[in-house]
Amino acid sequence: MKLYQYIYSDSSMRVRIYLAEKGIEVPFESVDISRGESHTPAFIAKNPLGQVPVLELDDGSHLAESIAICRYFEELHPEPSLFGRNPKERAEIEMWSRRVELAFAQPVQRVYRLRFHSNGALSAAAQDAIEVMEQSGARAAARFFDQTLAQRDFLAGADYSIADIMALCTYGMAQMLHIPLDPDFPHLRRWHESVSSRPSARA
Amino acid sequence: MKLYQYIYSDSSMRVRIYLAEKGIEVPFESVDISRGESHTPAFIAKNPLGQVPVLELDDGSHLAESIAICRYFEELHPEPSLFGRNPKERAEIEMWSRRVELAFAQPVQRVYRLRFHSNGALSAAAQDAIEVMEQSGARAAARFFDQTLAQRDFLAGADYSIADIMALCTYGMAQMLHIPLDPDFPHLRRWHESVSSRPSARA
Repeated sequence: MKLYQYIYSDSSMRVRIYLAEKGIEVPFESVDISRGESHTPAFIAKNPLGQVPVLELDDGSHLAESIAICRYFEELHPEPSLFGRNPKERAEIEMWSRRVELAFAQPVQRVYRLRFHSNGALSAAAQDAIEVMEQSGARAAARFFDQTLAQRDFLAGADYSIADIMALCTYGMAQMLHIPLDPDFPHLRRWHESVSSRPSARA
Repeated sequence: MKLYQYIYSDSSMRVRIYLAEKGIEVPFESVDISRGESHTPAFIAKNPLGQVPVLELDDGSHLAESIAICRYFEELHPEPSLFGRNPKERAEIEMWSRRVELAFAQPVQRVYRLRFHSNGALSAAAQDAIEVMEQSGARAAARFFDQTLAQRDFLAGADYSIADIMALCTYGMAQMLHIPLDPDFPHLRRWHESVSSRPSARA
């Protein structure tokens, strides 16, 4: 097994933190996106979408998508549980993972792509208008998370889960992009201090 | 148990088709989004995001997010499998579900929101520019799916899965929005004829 990943990719970071939390060791191979290494023919053969992370299995097949990779490891190493210990817990963690992905991670990733990978098809005014819309979406999600975290320690309940890992990686990307999130959100800030002080956050 | 859902919601349709494929009967309660019924205080108490579908469990708690609801039923009723029968199959179906969600369903849903729920913050030019960008994203996903379906019957492999259900619902929404998808994509068209002719597609 081998994990193709990139140090500055937030999706790769999800898998690195997940593996650190589980205590699973997998060899990493760096794919430098900034130098086009995720779009070589050799890499496209592993993931046609040209995205990291990609897990290479021992049978030579490849698995893409951060959460699919984590879920695969979860089946092989169920403890400590990061996807839930019974059907209801698993469904609630899936609900929260989807909320983080769709309402928080996606708008922040679109801001990133807009700033750094815009193909010039959009006017400056259109680009500004989209950025305002996406930042507003990310802040609405952050407000919802703050309200949730007023009532419990972690996003999906009393225990740290894959939903927290996803939110932490997006939170870091939002900080890097200077998207203002937490000044008004004390519970989110407390949560961020907690999850970012775990040893896994440096993975 | 009770499923709050809306006939014209593509997320609700995912759950309806899933339940029909599994032969599971659950009472439905209609929430007419067009009349604001998903934003009443009573409904917000069930799902703070004001979205359908929502599953009400027998203990009075609520579960939102289409795929979280389907995954919950999958644990209670494993056969016929729509999420995979072993760790590798489950990971591959998760990978394809995420590709459908992020690369296909999300751009098409953004076109829908842009046309019907734009809050007037965007200029007509910005709105047109975003629509072109999102349509182009949806077509790129459709092209990728077409190439994949040249080699197998269904998106995630030889068997029909939750990834096909998700793609079918988005495909229908793209048709309703007149987003041109399939004229150039014969394998996608063959797949669509196959999945839309299953009895579950009328659920």
